[in-house]
Amino acid sequence: MRPMTDLEPVTEVRDMEESSVDAATNLKEQAERDEKEAGENRIEKRPRAHTLSSYTGSSSDEDEVNPRDKNQRNSKGSTDFCVKNIDNAAFGRREIEIAEQEMPGLIALRRRAENDKPLSGAKIIGCTHITAQTAVLVETLAALGASVRWAACNIYSTQNEVAAALAEAGFSIYAWKGETEEDFWWCIDKCINSEGWQPNMILDDGGDATHLMLKRYPAMFNMIKGIVEESVTGVHRLYQLSKSGKLTVPAMNVNDSVTKTKFDNLYSCRESILDALKRTTDVMFGGKQVIICGYGEVGKGCASALKGLGCNVLVAEIDPICALQACMDGFRVTRLEEVVKNIDILITCTGNKNVVTRNHMDKMKTGCIVCNMGHSNTEIDVGSLRTPDLTWEKVRSQVDHIIWPDGKRIILLAEGRLVNLSCSSVPSFVVSITSATQALALIELYNAPQGRYKQDVYLLPKKMDEYVASLHLPTFDAHLTELTDEQAKYLGLNKTGPFKPNYYRY
Amino acid sequence: MRPMTDLEPVTEVRDMEESSVDAATNLKEQAERDEKEAGENRIEKRPRAHTLSSYTGSSSDEDEVNPRDKNQRNSKGSTDFCVKNIDNAAFGRREIEIAEQEMPGLIALRRRAENDKPLSGAKIIGCTHITAQTAVLVETLAALGASVRWAACNIYSTQNEVAAALAEAGFSIYAWKGETEEDFWWCIDKCINSEGWQPNMILDDGGDATHLMLKRYPAMFNMIKGIVEESVTGVHRLYQLSKSGKLTVPAMNVNDSVTKTKFDNLYSCRESILDALKRTTDVMFGGKQVIICGYGEVGKGCASALKGLGCNVLVAEIDPICALQACMDGFRVTRLEEVVKNIDILITCTGNKNVVTRNHMDKMKTGCIVCNMGHSNTEIDVGSLRTPDLTWEKVRSQVDHIIWPDGKRIILLAEGRLVNLSCSSVPSFVVSITSATQALALIELYNAPQGRYKQDVYLLPKKMDEYVASLHLPTFDAHLTELTDEQAKYLGLNKTGPFKPNYYRY
Amino acid sequence: MRPMTDLEPVTEVRDMEESSVDAATNLKEQAERDEKEAGENRIEKRPRAHTLSSYTGSSSDEDEVNPRDKNQRNSKGSTDFCVKNIDNAAFGRREIEIAEQEMPGLIALRRRAENDKPLSGAKIIGCTHITAQTAVLVETLAALGASVRWAACNIYSTQNEVAAALAEAGFSIYAWKGETEEDFWWCIDKCINSEGWQPNMILDDGGDATHLMLKRYPAMFNMIKGIVEESVTGVHRLYQLSKSGKLTVPAMNVNDSVTKTKFDNLYSCRESILDALKRTTDVMFGGKQVIICGYGEVGKGCASALKGLGCNVLVAEIDPICALQACMDGFRVTRLEEVVKNIDILITCTGNKNVVTRNHMDKMKTGCIVCNMGHSNTEIDVGSLRTPDLTWEKVRSQVDHIIWPDGKRIILLAEGRLVNLSCSSVPSFVVSITSATQALALIELYNAPQGRYKQDVYLLPKKMDEYVASLHLPTFDAHLTELTDEQAKYLGLNKTGPFKPNYYRY
Amino acid sequence: MRPMTDLEPVTEVRDMEESSVDAATNLKEQAERDEKEAGENRIEKRPRAHTLSSYTGSSSDEDEVNPRDKNQRNSKGSTDFCVKNIDNAAFGRREIEIAEQEMPGLIALRRRAENDKPLSGAKIIGCTHITAQTAVLVETLAALGASVRWAACNIYSTQNEVAAALAEAGFSIYAWKGETEEDFWWCIDKCINSEGWQPNMILDDGGDATHLMLKRYPAMFNMIKGIVEESVTGVHRLYQLSKSGKLTVPAMNVNDSVTKTKFDNLYSCRESILDALKRTTDVMFGGKQVIICGYGEVGKGCASALKGLGCNVLVAEIDPICALQACMDGFRVTRLEEVVKNIDILITCTGNKNVVTRNHMDKMKTGCIVCNMGHSNTEIDVGSLRTPDLTWEKVRSQVDHIIWPDGKRIILLAEGRLVNLSCSSVPSFVVSITSATQALALIELYNAPQGRYKQDVYLLPKKMDEYVASLHLPTFDAHLTELTDEQAKYLGLNKTGPFKPNYYRY
Repeated sequence: MRPMTDLEPVTEVRDMEESSVDAATNLKEQAERDEKEAGENRIEKRPRAHTLSSYTGSSSDEDEVNPRDKNQRNSKGSTDFCVKNIDNAAFGRREIEIAEQEMPGLIALRRRAENDKPLSGAKIIGCTHITAQTAVLVETLAALGASVRWAACNIYSTQNEVAAALAEAGFSIYAWKGETEEDFWWCIDKCINSEGWQPNMILDDGGDATHLMLKRYPAMFNMIKGIVEESVTGVHRLYQLSKSGKLTVPAMNVNDSVTKTKFDNLYSCRESILDALKRTTDVMFGGKQVIICGYGEVGKGCASALKGLGCNVLVAEIDPICALQACMDGFRVTRLEEVVKNIDILITCTGNKNVVTRNHMDKMKTGCIVCNMGHSNTEIDVGSLRTPDLTWEKVRSQVDHIIWPDGKRIILLAEGRLVNLSCSSVPSFVVSITSATQALALIELYNAPQGRYKQDVYLLPKKMDEYVASLHLPTFDAHLTELTDEQAKYLGLNKTGPFKPNYYRY
Repeated sequence: MRPMTDLEPVTEVRDMEESSVDAATNLKEQAERDEKEAGENRIEKRPRAHTLSSYTGSSSDEDEVNPRDKNQRNSKGSTDFCVKNIDNAAFGRREIEIAEQEMPGLIALRRRAENDKPLSGAKIIGCTHITAQTAVLVETLAALGASVRWAACNIYSTQNEVAAALAEAGFSIYAWKGETEEDFWWCIDKCINSEGWQPNMILDDGGDATHLMLKRYPAMFNMIKGIVEESVTGVHRLYQLSKSGKLTVPAMNVNDSVTKTKFDNLYSCRESILDALKRTTDVMFGGKQVIICGYGEVGKGCASALKGLGCNVLVAEIDPICALQACMDGFRVTRLEEVVKNIDILITCTGNKNVVTRNHMDKMKTGCIVCNMGHSNTEIDVGSLRTPDLTWEKVRSQVDHIIWPDGKRIILLAEGRLVNLSCSSVPSFVVSITSATQALALIELYNAPQGRYKQDVYLLPKKMDEYVASLHLPTFDAHLTELTDEQAKYLGLNKTGPFKPNYYRY
Repeated sequence: MRPMTDLEPVTEVRDMEESSVDAATNLKEQAERDEKEAGENRIEKRPRAHTLSSYTGSSSDEDEVNPRDKNQRNSKGSTDFCVKNIDNAAFGRREIEIAEQEMPGLIALRRRAENDKPLSGAKIIGCTHITAQTAVLVETLAALGASVRWAACNIYSTQNEVAAALAEAGFSIYAWKGETEEDFWWCIDKCINSEGWQPNMILDDGGDATHLMLKRYPAMFNMIKGIVEESVTGVHRLYQLSKSGKLTVPAMNVNDSVTKTKFDNLYSCRESILDALKRTTDVMFGGKQVIICGYGEVGKGCASALKGLGCNVLVAEIDPICALQACMDGFRVTRLEEVVKNIDILITCTGNKNVVTRNHMDKMKTGCIVCNMGHSNTEIDVGSLRTPDLTWEKVRSQVDHIIWPDGKRIILLAEGRLVNLSCSSVPSFVVSITSATQALALIELYNAPQGRYKQDVYLLPKKMDEYVASLHLPTFDAHLTELTDEQAKYLGLNKTGPFKPNYYRY
Repeated sequence: MRPMTDLEPVTEVRDMEESSVDAATNLKEQAERDEKEAGENRIEKRPRAHTLSSYTGSSSDEDEVNPRDKNQRNSKGSTDFCVKNIDNAAFGRREIEIAEQEMPGLIALRRRAENDKPLSGAKIIGCTHITAQTAVLVETLAALGASVRWAACNIYSTQNEVAAALAEAGFSIYAWKGETEEDFWWCIDKCINSEGWQPNMILDDGGDATHLMLKRYPAMFNMIKGIVEESVTGVHRLYQLSKSGKLTVPAMNVNDSVTKTKFDNLYSCRESILDALKRTTDVMFGGKQVIICGYGEVGKGCASALKGLGCNVLVAEIDPICALQACMDGFRVTRLEEVVKNIDILITCTGNKNVVTRNHMDKMKTGCIVCNMGHSNTEIDVGSLRTPDLTWEKVRSQVDHIIWPDGKRIILLAEGRLVNLSCSSVPSFVVSITSATQALALIELYNAPQGRYKQDVYLLPKKMDEYVASLHLPTFDAHLTELTDEQAKYLGLNKTGPFKPNYYRY
């Protein structure tokens, strides 16, 4: 559910060789902190849709006893979980029910496959953000026959009531908002190391469950039938494992599925850029001079949306192919330094670092809005703004004015972190697509005949991508055309797909 | 600054004949209450731009002493004002300074005309919403030579700190948030009836200052050089006065200026519909089936924006010309009842009543979002939803789920009131255009040679409209072309305009 | 059917005072020649739709006997007509039948009103271009009860076969392609001055029939019930007559009807600019730098279409209101001289003269395309290109390369005349709207109660405009919503319209 | 330069095993005839840009002597060519000069590489359409050091004057318009089998030169350094050769380069659908109901263009991923049979056969326009319309009315062949991209170190694609941003590219 970046720097990936699990609490790299901060912001702006109980969030003011020190029991007597407060299960259940209404694709998958139980016998370790949407995924996996144990992939992002609702429903959940680093690894360990329950699959978001199992339980790891990984970072860690010959089980990279890259990046960012800018600055788009750095999927989405609302959009690019696309789409391609004096809004979506430097910002006119849609917090050189001559003034949540000695104000959003994560919401529909992709990947790896997948990292078979898409068509009352036998033969295709060669670009 | 409706029903205009000022507190019509409610909502979502001090609003929790019972004095010793708390002036000043940055057109007017002082000798009664943007107008009028006294046109909409800042700056402001009806008229009266200060102009928003002066101080009223009125309601009241022969002074209808109707309605609503829907429901636009009832300026703006973001937009219309425009713009024109079962989002912008009935809503599918961009709170028959068989569940501020016995949920925004006023912000840029128009109208009426304006209601001369537009072009670094002498002669135009015949449609 | 210009210079209107009918052949002004030339071009590119008989046009190679010298008789024995060749009637009839299919609004009017015969007793002099579309109008007027006599308003634009078909059907048509000026006035005179047939209405396009009758048959003129005039030029002549007190009968200006200005200008030009540029130059739009001079309806249509196809569009404007609209629509507003070096395509739509000068063209880069969508042939100073240092090379019909001494080539379309008339076709749908408006205007003037119309120039009542629009909605399967009684009362409207105040801008 | 289809049926590929070159004249399959017909149409509508000499085309009326029977000699005395008429060289040269102006990317390549002469020593057999654009490619290859001999890949598509100009310039050209099948193979053979000239590369369009050399001169074939193939058909033949182990040299598939698929299909078709529909039918787009069958690149381009001009666009799809894209782009996805009664325009872009059947066409309403943008002539079942009950009426070149017994007319364009090839032009800019890609592929294969390419079919390396794109950026005055050293290191990229992973979708 994280907006993907066009390019992911190798340097950001945590080096698996040097960090041991036990030393993990000492890993105080900026990259990691950023992720946690992003998680923190995600609390307020987490994926959700038409509703949000006003109650959520207040629970953080509850008692400050560490859940590990509590004795909790769900209504059926189980104690195999650790959440903030099992008593809040009802509130969480309501959130889950609302999320179900907004994730038609995932629910459709549940209905279609719950008789087959394609995950019967699967024992899945889950390690992801824990939100109402995740709960719909968890309960879908269970409906398909799986047994699961679940921890959080982020110390701040757990919705406590949702975790309680899952625990009450009998799932072994180990997660709460505000874990310490030690809690974090304790929770994952509790999921993995459970008596009489030998996991055979991992659903990971960031690679921490994979990492821990590989380090602490290598024998168990070798028995795994497959890993499904969603994040850019986790995928990089898998490729590095693979390169160094340490990946002894097949893994599925769902981060680069077409249903993720084209939909999550293009269509989702097209909307979230508008939302994020409006919620933070109330800026009027009409007539504004905007520069978009980076014309990948995210940049294309942003440019199209802002052009549609009357902005005059310029594009900066390093890649001549993307630059030529920008030209053909009607945008002037220029270097940032050529126009930086005149722009009203600057948006980065490159995946690169220091795309916007202090030197650029020194030349901007007063009132210029600067934000990042691309990657982590590296694109804007925010550090260069923390100098004595500049004054920071927080004017709203996620909005800072940086004031130059002459009174010029630059408006910086989310301190240069991802503005769509920090300042807008992620539609449940997009989460539904990603979750369905994860479920399909688990089914595929679990049921694949011996030998189909080796000890490597795979992309989801195209047919699965197509199936995920088909699950989401009824939402739009879309009616697919079916090939006749004659047509299928003419095209050399199976009537049920896959319909395109692997290199097809969509 | 109120989004205009395409059509304004005669029946809504308060009957001037039957209501006396003293009986005003008894005027408990729904229409009036709605306006006040809208005002209340406007507090949170008032016109503003890049910033909003987090401090604002908390002041409402202050002491509950009626300002009329307080003894306040500004730093220069003046007591000729009545605001919530003069001590908050500094906060308000900061808001005003920020607003100044975002109202370049009005500031440009101030600079261009402050040497001429075209309002020298003007004594203006102002009765409008009191916000930071209004303060920029007030101080602009003063810079142009006017002396002003100002009251609020709405009992809820005053920004207390801004009122304090104006009072501290020496303006006679009588306004606070949370006035009673009695307070309301008292404040206006205090502005009008000031010893040694005989007003000669009125700047009104809704017609209340005009009404009171006409009723209580008819002799003073007859000395007025002109009235400038901004609102639909106020303009109607003026036309009624004119019809009945009671309008003894010239009045300027700035509500129907092209700079207001085309910009405030089309361009502003194009953005606010997106903003309002996102902030309240986080809905994903892509692929959604939307029906827009009414294809006037507001409907055109909404349709264009939503189409641009991937909605499938349908239009319902009563007027065949607007319907044909919708066709040519690519929208299917249909009756609501033909498609109501399939739509995801319904937006009214007709100016009519009961456009959406209980019967329609009974047929909607679960999750359908219903909101009003048009007029008052009449378009959706909300009353029909207040029946025992339906359950209302407030899921967020301004968002209600109406739940049918079978579990179907309709998502109603702002209880059917104007969703752009209630759930999104109004860009300062649009306020700047409107304020500049008001200032120009005052200048025109005040300086017009004897006989140019009779006892009637006028539209602003086109040349003034053009001037307002020209004040706002530098914001976009737009460079106008100038006619050569030869070209002006060929076109039969003055080189400085006006450039179009009065019937030109833009 | 002529794309309207935003502004019509007074100077271009032929002075009625100085020109007598008998001196008409001496009227050798450029303006008139231009119109004739435009007519000539219109032959090839005349309004038509899905079909064009390959046969058309070859008839111009026929015998060169002047039709006035021929003895022709239709199959019923009538000789009251003068056309090129009555034997070609069958070909013309087929063209008319095809046109009927493509003018649903006009045919619908025919069907709805042919029982009422609202033109029963009307005796109409028609003087317009004579094309298949005109024939559908002529036969519609007859079906509604009128008796008509018809001449051409242009010496080149008559479709001979269509004229023959009308003559064969019994209509008194006096028109052929290639009339001399003397023929021209003879034809009109033959229509007006017919024994036993006293005209009581005029349908004019350019004002020539009106002019001739007023000059030669003033008594007859005074008996006229009304004049309907479609062209910019004709409307100007009427206003001048009115100003000078010589207009003794009511006249209807259908040129400024909303159904004409908004549809013919905005929607039609949106398409014809693309068509004209492609047909003449095969230019690829994607990525092209385009400047549009003039952001009226025509300019708005061109800008929207080209932006949609990936052009980078700039706008030049003299009017600050239109300039501000351009800004809000996302176009940079600039002066031509600031960008002329970089542009790939220049389009004029101002109604002005010498918008593009030799000085501008000296600075253009090689390959720049220059064309006029606005008005007559004045916008581009083509005369300044006819100097010895420049070489003209005709590379296609309507396409000239102007070659500078250094080899630079400017591509000039239609020698600066209206490129949409010269190089693209006019959709029948738009002609249908205009023709229906003309028919309605005739019905209104003919049936209006005594005193409704004085000796002045009127716009068509809004209700008629609405009726014309409603005739064209079934083409799009558009379903209008009807007001309930309650709603109509609330809005203070009649349920059948008119639905908007006169100043409504659409 | 042929718009690519999304899918290419295996069945259409000519079976190399069964057809011998000598039997080639007996290959009378429909598919081949269609191609020739398309070639014939291409004469009138061939790639060209701002100009077209009016002279072109008339040359087909010249003497009918077979060029093989003529003795021709160029001005330098060479006789090693066979063209229609060497005397027309000057006309052809002028066309080439104009084309040069419009192919900036290819000319830039020529300038940048002509000192290096990267093709020095290359001996290239070319077999492509011979047009002015091709001539620019031929002379570019020569400027880069290559020696070439060239034949036509199509018996109808040669521009005779251009061939003459090339022959006059000293190139061994064997091609004329209107070759017989025997001529066709004779020409290719004359290019291959030239004394003292041993070819070492092939540039093919359709695979015929490859085929002939492989069959007749297998030893020579084995010495080839590489084949560059542009067409869908030729690429299939190469993949089949490769599969059956008969491809003994490396081949480059330039048909699936991103610069071809994204630009030629998406951007070019976006424009050509409008052009083709306007030129043939003059249809007004506004308000039209359009169905697009197939939402690949071509379908996306068509849908976007038509939506932008006010059409109401529906999409039919078999692939759920593309269908979901259509939904998110705002199009309703439906089956053709559900809506066929209501549509005004139907466009096929599937690559499939019988997408539109007689059954569909029986249900269409009168006036429906049917055309094919996809593939060959299979998509519309035109054969089913050739029944005695239906009447065909040719109303214009490339436009037939099919008339049902009840008078209903369907408007069929180009008899179901590719409407963009038959009825619109191909912009030189797109040809320039494709030609530059071909030239780069030749350079790469010719200069690749031993072992880089095996006996297989390759895609052009991404860096070459990027170089082609960069050659075309100056046309748009686009300024690329360059990575700093630090950024390149951060991204793990070379500063000069390639910038994206191979699976990147653009």
